[in-house]
Amino acid sequence: MYDVFQTDRLIDLWLTEDIGYCDLTAQLMIEAHETGAFFMNARETLIVAGIDVAARIFKRYDPTLEVSVRVKDGDKVERGTVLLDVSGTARSVLTAERTALNIVQRLSGIANLTEQYAAAVAGTRARLIDTRKTTPGLRMLEKHAVTCGGGLNHRLGLDNGVMIKDNHIAVCGGIAKAVQRARRQLPVLTKLEVECDRLEQVKEALAAGVDVIMLDNMSIEEMARAVDLVSGRVLLEASGGISLATIGAVAKTGVDYISTSKINQAAACVDIGLDEAE
Amino acid sequence: MYDVFQTDRLIDLWLTEDIGYCDLTAQLMIEAHETGAFFMNARETLIVAGIDVAARIFKRYDPTLEVSVRVKDGDKVERGTVLLDVSGTARSVLTAERTALNIVQRLSGIANLTEQYAAAVAGTRARLIDTRKTTPGLRMLEKHAVTCGGGLNHRLGLDNGVMIKDNHIAVCGGIAKAVQRARRQLPVLTKLEVECDRLEQVKEALAAGVDVIMLDNMSIEEMARAVDLVSGRVLLEASGGISLATIGAVAKTGVDYISTSKINQAAACVDIGLDEAE
Amino acid sequence: MYDVFQTDRLIDLWLTEDIGYCDLTAQLMIEAHETGAFFMNARETLIVAGIDVAARIFKRYDPTLEVSVRVKDGDKVERGTVLLDVSGTARSVLTAERTALNIVQRLSGIANLTEQYAAAVAGTRARLIDTRKTTPGLRMLEKHAVTCGGGLNHRLGLDNGVMIKDNHIAVCGGIAKAVQRARRQLPVLTKLEVECDRLEQVKEALAAGVDVIMLDNMSIEEMARAVDLVSGRVLLEASGGISLATIGAVAKTGVDYISTSKINQAAACVDIGLDEAE
Amino acid sequence: MYDVFQTDRLIDLWLTEDIGYCDLTAQLMIEAHETGAFFMNARETLIVAGIDVAARIFKRYDPTLEVSVRVKDGDKVERGTVLLDVSGTARSVLTAERTALNIVQRLSGIANLTEQYAAAVAGTRARLIDTRKTTPGLRMLEKHAVTCGGGLNHRLGLDNGVMIKDNHIAVCGGIAKAVQRARRQLPVLTKLEVECDRLEQVKEALAAGVDVIMLDNMSIEEMARAVDLVSGRVLLEASGGISLATIGAVAKTGVDYISTSKINQAAACVDIGLDEAE
Amino acid sequence: MYDVFQTDRLIDLWLTEDIGYCDLTAQLMIEAHETGAFFMNARETLIVAGIDVAARIFKRYDPTLEVSVRVKDGDKVERGTVLLDVSGTARSVLTAERTALNIVQRLSGIANLTEQYAAAVAGTRARLIDTRKTTPGLRMLEKHAVTCGGGLNHRLGLDNGVMIKDNHIAVCGGIAKAVQRARRQLPVLTKLEVECDRLEQVKEALAAGVDVIMLDNMSIEEMARAVDLVSGRVLLEASGGISLATIGAVAKTGVDYISTSKINQAAACVDIGLDEAE
Amino acid sequence: MYDVFQTDRLIDLWLTEDIGYCDLTAQLMIEAHETGAFFMNARETLIVAGIDVAARIFKRYDPTLEVSVRVKDGDKVERGTVLLDVSGTARSVLTAERTALNIVQRLSGIANLTEQYAAAVAGTRARLIDTRKTTPGLRMLEKHAVTCGGGLNHRLGLDNGVMIKDNHIAVCGGIAKAVQRARRQLPVLTKLEVECDRLEQVKEALAAGVDVIMLDNMSIEEMARAVDLVSGRVLLEASGGISLATIGAVAKTGVDYISTSKINQAAACVDIGLDEAE
Repeated sequence: MYDVFQTDRLIDLWLTEDIGYCDLTAQLMIEAHETGAFFMNARETLIVAGIDVAARIFKRYDPTLEVSVRVKDGDKVERGTVLLDVSGTARSVLTAERTALNIVQRLSGIANLTEQYAAAVAGTRARLIDTRKTTPGLRMLEKHAVTCGGGLNHRLGLDNGVMIKDNHIAVCGGIAKAVQRARRQLPVLTKLEVECDRLEQVKEALAAGVDVIMLDNMSIEEMARAVDLVSGRVLLEASGGISLATIGAVAKTGVDYISTSKINQAAACVDIGLDEAE
Repeated sequence: MYDVFQTDRLIDLWLTEDIGYCDLTAQLMIEAHETGAFFMNARETLIVAGIDVAARIFKRYDPTLEVSVRVKDGDKVERGTVLLDVSGTARSVLTAERTALNIVQRLSGIANLTEQYAAAVAGTRARLIDTRKTTPGLRMLEKHAVTCGGGLNHRLGLDNGVMIKDNHIAVCGGIAKAVQRARRQLPVLTKLEVECDRLEQVKEALAAGVDVIMLDNMSIEEMARAVDLVSGRVLLEASGGISLATIGAVAKTGVDYISTSKINQAAACVDIGLDEAE
Repeated sequence: MYDVFQTDRLIDLWLTEDIGYCDLTAQLMIEAHETGAFFMNARETLIVAGIDVAARIFKRYDPTLEVSVRVKDGDKVERGTVLLDVSGTARSVLTAERTALNIVQRLSGIANLTEQYAAAVAGTRARLIDTRKTTPGLRMLEKHAVTCGGGLNHRLGLDNGVMIKDNHIAVCGGIAKAVQRARRQLPVLTKLEVECDRLEQVKEALAAGVDVIMLDNMSIEEMARAVDLVSGRVLLEASGGISLATIGAVAKTGVDYISTSKINQAAACVDIGLDEAE
Repeated sequence: MYDVFQTDRLIDLWLTEDIGYCDLTAQLMIEAHETGAFFMNARETLIVAGIDVAARIFKRYDPTLEVSVRVKDGDKVERGTVLLDVSGTARSVLTAERTALNIVQRLSGIANLTEQYAAAVAGTRARLIDTRKTTPGLRMLEKHAVTCGGGLNHRLGLDNGVMIKDNHIAVCGGIAKAVQRARRQLPVLTKLEVECDRLEQVKEALAAGVDVIMLDNMSIEEMARAVDLVSGRVLLEASGGISLATIGAVAKTGVDYISTSKINQAAACVDIGLDEAE
Repeated sequence: MYDVFQTDRLIDLWLTEDIGYCDLTAQLMIEAHETGAFFMNARETLIVAGIDVAARIFKRYDPTLEVSVRVKDGDKVERGTVLLDVSGTARSVLTAERTALNIVQRLSGIANLTEQYAAAVAGTRARLIDTRKTTPGLRMLEKHAVTCGGGLNHRLGLDNGVMIKDNHIAVCGGIAKAVQRARRQLPVLTKLEVECDRLEQVKEALAAGVDVIMLDNMSIEEMARAVDLVSGRVLLEASGGISLATIGAVAKTGVDYISTSKINQAAACVDIGLDEAE
Repeated sequence: MYDVFQTDRLIDLWLTEDIGYCDLTAQLMIEAHETGAFFMNARETLIVAGIDVAARIFKRYDPTLEVSVRVKDGDKVERGTVLLDVSGTARSVLTAERTALNIVQRLSGIANLTEQYAAAVAGTRARLIDTRKTTPGLRMLEKHAVTCGGGLNHRLGLDNGVMIKDNHIAVCGGIAKAVQRARRQLPVLTKLEVECDRLEQVKEALAAGVDVIMLDNMSIEEMARAVDLVSGRVLLEASGGISLATIGAVAKTGVDYISTSKINQAAACVDIGLDEAE
């Protein structure tokens, strides 16, 4: 989920960034009338994310280019799979090439890593979710990549949901009072989450009436007891220090969500290239 | 090297992205007059990159905040090191916090990985260099992070230097003709690089008179022979499939530059947090 | 609740709009060095909204102006009350004057009308809420004005909450299936609302598990029965054809929220002027 | 009169405002390939204004949508009249719907109210004119709406015409000197208006040679005497405290223009909706 | 006359244009802490225009720079005159230097040439005026430069005044009908000008009631007869093929305005440099 | 060489500048449905530059216009030559007309003057080059115009090449040390130029190893000796006080490049008009 109209504004920025004054090589080495046919192909097995964005980049730079997308976001493809075809004015394809590759390589990298984490919780009640720890400027696209890999999104930004933390609780004099303060002007369709780092707080949050409780840096045992305590009355999110090694055990505690910044912050780009069709 | 004025435009975009309509939590939970003192600290050993950008983010969002930077880009710091202090209106600090952390975490991650690659070529003639395979929207800042880690920058964008590739050579009928074509309108302070994937081409490029020759996906032996052949008359860049395991051997061939996209595309963010001062 | 940083972008647009090439009168009639002291005053009894935005407009146009705000948003003030003082370069004050007045007149007008509707539901469980029927370009500021008048905000925009409507239900084959479809990728902190126009649907929605049910264009009797039926398990929003004449009766049915576009779409600007201090 | 090219910039802003990160409902509930046919219809009798802007909003968001406008700005239409048809990708129509409706509802509301004021001066020499008291960000479109309702525009912005006021006159030492000062660098195609609040000033202005004289907050009798005095040598604008109750009498004095902020500031949006075609 | 707020938007664009990714020389050759004092000086006799814009460029790029302007726009200065002083961070001064010089060189060049044309009409009734033939992106600043050189501005842009030309007249079936058409929705403070290329048309325009008549490409004799004919009832503008050689004779015919694109389109930049203070 | 995508951003700015609120004349005098066919023609002999930009302006303002370009940039055309045809909605053509003419008049003026300077060095080794002394906002287009006239571009902006000047040399303690400092982080494809004003410095620069040496304000004799001294080992640029009278003699010294700001700063616009086809 991302908006194509907003994405066009980002594409303009990215193209401007890479081109600078002009693509000296394309302008010097290729005649304006020369055309070519190219295809973008996976150079390793990967989960596709951002392929429509790549297509839009070519069309945005030069609307006369012919672009056809051969796979769809979320597909798992083998090495050698053609992801899209682009043909037309050779200068335009080559000028937009790197920007198109860079974004799909990064987004597919995130989808790839997300899939590994998601696989580790498969078969449990827990859903893998992301955080706001995304690359500045790529928030919504990286959140989209997470869904391509099988994850779910936590809040999209600071206007999506309210998170009550330690210091808010301290200042207000307890969870009950903090929740009360939040509710005074909470927009109607916005959920309220409270960060708890011990069971006592979970009880208070439950009593105060929140939508989601974050179990922050709790042990597996504590989480399991929180699940018992809550017994389905509110949603529970496990958070803090989750790794591929530990996520399975966390999922088995029965929490609803497990969040990790790793799927965005530790994802390496995948290898995708653009080749000229013979 | 990056321009602070241009960076401010990016900061505006990033803040807008994270805030959306408004920071609901900050506005609901914190009174407008409340103040606080916070510090950003390294939660692992790392090479700092982007700390001045983080400082600018706080000042840009709210010019009344007091920010002091305690380290400088390129510094290697231990876990627990305080990177910057920020104090003033608590709402403003918390609204800008995630954006500031996200960028310095990513840039320091790149500096960190670059340092490992740079260490592997230390003591040789070779300098580690980056590519244009950067995150869309972060080109110059990621290139700056590479220099913080000890690397050097290849071209900044499509207007910085000319790269003659296979298909240009094929279309023009050989390297000599391709170089001739490029020179017709090449701006005076722009360098010319030719991509060669066999020794025969290296000879042609040498004869044609270029500034840099890229040895693309050559074996260690071929690279060594290219170094002999060229014997210092032009600069040589080794490229293609470089890893931490192989970079040392490549460096020993005597090439001038070794480029890899890994330092940008495979870097994981480092762990940095913002805590409230007691 | 609105973000000051985002508001500055709007202010730039508004000033540019009114000034065009330049303020001919100010430049021709007033010398650059002339100064003056002015005050913005209420010319009728009103609820203040947007006074800090007005202050920011003067400072944004000319940071050397001295501006002090004398009241705060949400205050009910009598005719003749001074809302802010501004002094300094006379040209700057006069160039920015109309933009500053126009916004505070409109926002206070919305706060004013909202207060009348809010008064009509006082003493009941029901909270008055707004809609997305706001003036293009003024969404968040108009929603803020609603809170100044005692209302609450429904969703801020299309990314804040999900609204399942008639045609979605028809396409999916019933409310249960529609809710299931929505939940597949619903972000964690986002609430789900279903629009129901008969009691049968309310039952279905209750069974499907949603956060809010909108009772769309129902009679007072139907609404009362819906309240009974739901008996506090989900939140209920009354919507459709609400007027000052009917809102009291609707509120007495026991619904949680009553939404109306009137508070934004039918609000007249209030009378506020800028005068020169003697 | 408004420029379509400039309007597109506003449309981008409005769409971005409503969509935020993305239209969650459209993306979750509607498949990308689903299409639909919709029509915008008047739910009350109204004067149309902004219907082409509404059409542009749909096309701007998604150029593949088919949009046909069935009426034209300035038309008076009955309840139930179809204003435009839009069909194509259902997601796109629903995402852009609210923005399109919001603008045409507001502009038609202004046209509606303007028509009532204009009707009250019909048959006299006086033309109804607007002011710069418009909604920030909608200046030109609201002025266009005024012309749809039968009004005329006063100056478009601060670069359109010069208005000499009390304090200018005081500072310069009289109207004659103020006019002289204004004329020194007055652009050739710019008119000069002087605000007069007593007959004595009207005489001075007449002698000084201005294009328009504003009779500010004068009584009906004073205005009539000003008309006599001037006897067609310059244009006269009546201003201040005009209402539907008083405008007819003002018009009969023989002034050329009557200005009121009411047509913009007191206009309520009209009821217009979008329905799916059967 | 120009607006400083709007000018800041242009300054951002200009700085971005010259800097690109970053000022490599400043960043490589100058340490961040180095400071310097510089002065901008006239290297030939010239009329100053744009010196405050130059000052704003330095402050906009780096608000910590100290800038003081020593002359004012419109001043005629001798070679060697210091126009402004700027001191502070050396990197910032040198990065902004070229942009600041480029604009003040061009604007002063226009003021210079304007002064020569203005001198040629001194002592006559005629005022020298400009046209819309300005450099794209510099409209208002170039019009300001014209006033610095003693000229007056014709319309600022397409929204400032109405110009009825040949083809409008042809389509409408004569000047009278064209003027009538224009008046239907002409904004109140907007003037109407008609382009006439023979005396017959001047008579028609006079009868139709316009504000200004342009005598387009008429001979000196025709212009003189037009002046007689009109005898002060409307303003007359001479236009077409004016040069320094002919402008004096045109002025003597008694026209009110003489317009020429030459003062903008044929102006050469003047020589101004930035030197380091000893 | 210029990028069309970036140029579109400039075109938006230029059109906005000229149009302001709206083109009053076009809207008042021409019916929306009227069409026309127009052609842009050279009113003097000239070198064409920017004709594709002019075409884009029409298409950008109104994509339904039909535009065909009849010549190409760099062509020398006689008076009376048709440069492009444009037909369609008459309002659109007339609204965009002046912007289109203004840019092609200026760019062709630069190409024209460049050709005269280039002709003066024809037959020598020297190539005529430009500087960064361009009109703010038109950098790349003016550099393109220089190539249309037969010149070559020096650096495009501050990120294109490094220029070591007097004060850098002074601060570093000599050319050798300055070059060493520059090389520490010089991007790989960036050239290094040193400004020398005496032969002694040329020797030092040669020893330090730079790419280009600028001979700044040297006499013909000194330049000739520098050429001897260097004998082809680095490129030499003659700079300072070049005029049409002196450039031939400079070229004969054997330097590689001769730079002058005159081709940009002293170029007068050429005469080009838009006429309606019969």
